Amino acid sequence: MPTRIAVLLFDHFTALDAVGPYEMLCRLPDTEVVFVAERTGPVPNDRGELGLVATRTFAEVPAPAIVVVPGGPGQEAQMENEVLLEWLRAVDATSTWTTSVCTGSLLLAAAGLLKGREATSHWLALDRLKRLGAEPTGRRVVTDGKYVTAAGVSSGIDMGLTLVGRVAGDRHAQAVQLLTEYDPRPPYDAGSPGKASADLVEEFRTRSRFIPR
Amino acid sequence: MPTRIAVLLFDHFTALDAVGPYEMLCRLPDTEVVFVAERTGPVPNDRGELGLVATRTFAEVPAPAIVVVPGGPGQEAQMENEVLLEWLRAVDATSTWTTSVCTGSLLLAAAGLLKGREATSHWLALDRLKRLGAEPTGRRVVTDGKYVTAAGVSSGIDMGLTLVGRVAGDRHAQAVQLLTEYDPRPPYDAGSPGKASADLVEEFRTRSRFIPR
Repeated sequence: MPTRIAVLLFDHFTALDAVGPYEMLCRLPDTEVVFVAERTGPVPNDRGELGLVATRTFAEVPAPAIVVVPGGPGQEAQMENEVLLEWLRAVDATSTWTTSVCTGSLLLAAAGLLKGREATSHWLALDRLKRLGAEPTGRRVVTDGKYVTAAGVSSGIDMGLTLVGRVAGDRHAQAVQLLTEYDPRPPYDAGSPGKASADLVEEFRTRSRFIPR
Repeated sequence: MPTRIAVLLFDHFTALDAVGPYEMLCRLPDTEVVFVAERTGPVPNDRGELGLVATRTFAEVPAPAIVVVPGGPGQEAQMENEVLLEWLRAVDATSTWTTSVCTGSLLLAAAGLLKGREATSHWLALDRLKRLGAEPTGRRVVTDGKYVTAAGVSSGIDMGLTLVGRVAGDRHAQAVQLLTEYDPRPPYDAGSPGKASADLVEEFRTRSRFIPR
């Protein structure tokens, strides 16, 4: 039996949150990745213009080895979706790794899975993560036991590659990094609140409605 | 009218090649992104386990401002698909920017669009790109006129953010970088052939069938 990895999808998720770690984790040896949602079929992203196809319902994926929870503005509605939260609790009971990207950690926290644990989220959501009982850190990828949470959007790639190394060893992870040519060269150095200009950070903190408080 | 960006999809494309630049470019001001394929509906990725939904046919997208061509093992079959190559030539005639990620540049080259131009591709495909008439460089993102090509898989994020800066200015690009928290921290430093161990590079060069020569 291949190792089963479940990537959760829900309306108005952020596409890169799901596809970044997917592109790393799918290259684990002998692995099958399924895309799971309340219903099968296309699930629209946060802009409604990109659909990823859910191939399995919650009931069809009761015990994946690895669970990946993306974030995105749609996470807000899902925090009150008991069907989804119950699935998270159920799969977490037997998972080897439970992971999230961006505000996906708010969903794990809402399901009660991050109480007292070190975790992270999108930088604009760290206060909220704390109020949900986790202990936010400023690190990009945070591992606490079997829980691996990543910061905003693009950080899911680092999380996925980190997890590939934990599961399959450094050499396999380096092969994945080389094959996906993950040697990043951002044209700017403004990717975190400590590096971006203060007025840009402030602008997001005050006007941003994309992550509800 | 919003700026229209067309992301090409074809069977067995690599998902991150398309979604990486998408997640950056969709945040350009007043922009609409459409996913274009020969037929609308789900298009399977290179592992067949992830489908992205094409929302438009070639005929429905005659003149996008920006064209994004992903790569992936499916590119090989498409290099002989005259319907697709003809669409690339047609949209390139009026595009503001024609771009590619990974082996997507082989498709642009096969369409005759990169003759004598500086360009790049997945590191394993650079020789082939040269044989198709382009002038490969070792840089991660290569701009020659309106042609912006990126190296393997994950480099599409750098390409997308670079293009956001060219189109909307540095400050807007930095805002996109901050919002997507693109402050990469790869857990290894093996993301290009010059950095990975020589035996790993050699292993890919000799056994790799994922990029046909």
